[in-house]
Amino acid sequence: MAEVTRPRSTPKRTPLPKEEDARLQSEDRRAFFRRSAVVAGGALAAGGLASAARGAPLMVPLSELEMGRPIDATAYGMPSKFEKNVVRRRTDVFVNRQNWSDWSMTPLQYQLGVTTPNGLIFERHHAGTPDIDPATHRLVIHGMVRQPLQFTMDDLMRYPSVSRFLFHECSGNGLTDWLKNASTTVQQTHGLLSGVQWTGVPLSWLLDEAGVQPGAKWLLFEGADGSTHTRSVPLDKAMDDVLIVYGANGEMIRPENGYPLRAIVPGWEGNVSVKWLRRIKVGDQPWHFRSETARYTDPMPEGKWRQFSFDMECKSVITRPSGGMKLGARGPYEIQGFAWSGKGHITAVDVSLDGGRNWREARLEGPVLDKMLTRFRLPWNWDGGPAILQSRAVDSTGYVQPTVADLQKTRAIVGFVQHHNAIQPWSITANGEVRNAIA
Amino acid sequence: MAEVTRPRSTPKRTPLPKEEDARLQSEDRRAFFRRSAVVAGGALAAGGLASAARGAPLMVPLSELEMGRPIDATAYGMPSKFEKNVVRRRTDVFVNRQNWSDWSMTPLQYQLGVTTPNGLIFERHHAGTPDIDPATHRLVIHGMVRQPLQFTMDDLMRYPSVSRFLFHECSGNGLTDWLKNASTTVQQTHGLLSGVQWTGVPLSWLLDEAGVQPGAKWLLFEGADGSTHTRSVPLDKAMDDVLIVYGANGEMIRPENGYPLRAIVPGWEGNVSVKWLRRIKVGDQPWHFRSETARYTDPMPEGKWRQFSFDMECKSVITRPSGGMKLGARGPYEIQGFAWSGKGHITAVDVSLDGGRNWREARLEGPVLDKMLTRFRLPWNWDGGPAILQSRAVDSTGYVQPTVADLQKTRAIVGFVQHHNAIQPWSITANGEVRNAIA
Repeated sequence: MAEVTRPRSTPKRTPLPKEEDARLQSEDRRAFFRRSAVVAGGALAAGGLASAARGAPLMVPLSELEMGRPIDATAYGMPSKFEKNVVRRRTDVFVNRQNWSDWSMTPLQYQLGVTTPNGLIFERHHAGTPDIDPATHRLVIHGMVRQPLQFTMDDLMRYPSVSRFLFHECSGNGLTDWLKNASTTVQQTHGLLSGVQWTGVPLSWLLDEAGVQPGAKWLLFEGADGSTHTRSVPLDKAMDDVLIVYGANGEMIRPENGYPLRAIVPGWEGNVSVKWLRRIKVGDQPWHFRSETARYTDPMPEGKWRQFSFDMECKSVITRPSGGMKLGARGPYEIQGFAWSGKGHITAVDVSLDGGRNWREARLEGPVLDKMLTRFRLPWNWDGGPAILQSRAVDSTGYVQPTVADLQKTRAIVGFVQHHNAIQPWSITANGEVRNAIA
Repeated sequence: MAEVTRPRSTPKRTPLPKEEDARLQSEDRRAFFRRSAVVAGGALAAGGLASAARGAPLMVPLSELEMGRPIDATAYGMPSKFEKNVVRRRTDVFVNRQNWSDWSMTPLQYQLGVTTPNGLIFERHHAGTPDIDPATHRLVIHGMVRQPLQFTMDDLMRYPSVSRFLFHECSGNGLTDWLKNASTTVQQTHGLLSGVQWTGVPLSWLLDEAGVQPGAKWLLFEGADGSTHTRSVPLDKAMDDVLIVYGANGEMIRPENGYPLRAIVPGWEGNVSVKWLRRIKVGDQPWHFRSETARYTDPMPEGKWRQFSFDMECKSVITRPSGGMKLGARGPYEIQGFAWSGKGHITAVDVSLDGGRNWREARLEGPVLDKMLTRFRLPWNWDGGPAILQSRAVDSTGYVQPTVADLQKTRAIVGFVQHHNAIQPWSITANGEVRNAIA
């Protein structure tokens, strides 16, 4: 299997010296809570961001004079009617003339915390979403095994189980935005990304039970959807940490995310985590499916194409402020975003406010977990002038998130290129508009 | 403020010696994966729980011959139609003749992982659920402060924010099941409980900004619902770790859980985490609201009632198997449940299979977080005979979860008593039925 080609030289990382950064952070903290600031709405704040002017009458909202809605406890709860804009929109970069092979993207600009609500997890499908009855679904393990096995959902749910927080990302995340800013929002540039606590059974337990034969090296994962999506996965990875899961964020997986059963291959490109999983065949070499030749491969400078580039490399993006937003008055804001790595955990995130000349280290919010989204935060006082905001993640292997220029040294960026983990810049105009500044 | 009265003598805790437990665990592991077992469905398993008989034909499900559903990416995603039974039912113990002051409970028996999906978080309301427009909502801080403040939602969302995983429990959880088994399922006995990653602003930052005056000791929290729910909260707790939150599990809070703004008081009884929060008044003594005299107080043996018993003590419950379930064939099962403590993190959970005579230590699944649900797991080979399953949690203060008898030594169990953190036993009958065995 090909190693994902890393930039030849690790990008230079020069955050501010600790003492200077501490001084600036402390100034920001004061700025947030002590300095009066003009805020959206126009009134002078008494301190920080409160709207009430000193001495002005306070407007406690009137008590609700009517009784509220009764709860329908036989229905699944839904978001407020005031949050109707928070949905998985399709990209507006490509508009398919059909919607059988399609995708929809997580609204990262609205995500709070690290797990993505199940109603908002991005999805990619090749032949629509099947509605599989768990009572009739089966998983078969066969091929180079001592004893072929078949499992019902009831069988699998009697096994000891594990739950694990993991990021989940499509290798095509960002493929339109390498050399031009085709997309407006972070939902469009990075929304094939989610954070999920999956629940299921380690595949190694099931393979142990089937008895893998000597010489076996690869697995076939096959989905039960209309496209019969298939991928080859190395046996070593399966024995290490692959999960066969039925749960996501506390409940059964949603239909578009693989109900009732899917593979989860931690840290690897999303499409090998085959959804609607029905068959695992054990073999001694990869199968070279269409998804491994015509699709999910990466062009190299020498005119060849790289296969089996599974790892999702260390990456980060600022989600707030991000493209399409408009800042209000100058003054305090919090810069927020996500960092993640398919090869370990995040050790640092640097943020630049000037397009990459100077960098300051952001605060990482715990728990910082292996192969999971980590949220970073940095207080920022916007002076009302133009700025270019970007983040740069570092993972536990020491890898530093590169720029597009760094990646171009070792890869060919032609057409729709997968595995885009470069730094994402957002420009702020003097009137507060936030724009994609990738190129 | 009254201290929650703990049992006079810590319950005796005698789990199996480590060596013996390790031996048994290892036997269980072998049992799960090596020993053939009769399973639900009737076929002899080749190994573990797989259904296929040795040599019998494998039934790979047919490929879906039709295209699946297209995704409506302008709609919020929903669970599979095969999961319609997973909802927040009202208890069947009390059936209100109205549904304005009511509650609905988390289906813990179906929960996977530690966070509760937002559509399933339990809720308690005193005058229905208001649908508050965030554009007009305000939070006012006044009373013994240097400068009264008023915040719009936009103001609050510009502040630096924090996200924190916390359990959330109503003090009335289990109040029907002290001395008789009034309830059937764990949703009914323990379902006023959820695990949530909340996002918001530490209240201490807002109070710092308002400038708390010398002598101030208590806060009033007031909701904007029709009942104007109000509670007194000690200033010390607020300065320690209370959050003013707008986010739950990655998105804005749902209406029934307090949209757009609520208090979260970590580790304390749910009703002080006032929903639809509109006002915080700073004072020098508690207000003694109806919710602090007629309600949310605990009877003591000497005929007095304890006020301000805020802490939710260390507790655990087995969710699988639990009341109302029916085991299939004898053989391997996984015992699963939750443990939590309002005073710290969980350090151990013991499980007894024989009604409390012998105890074995369960595996705690990480991350084990302060004041958050922790999942415990223990493999179990059911021999087909009667059994009584129960769990006992220990927290980082050394406190051991008591039995009802332990709690009766220091408290009066008369009427509907709050703060029930005693051990919950489930009996297994010879035909596999699981029943509430609290008394």
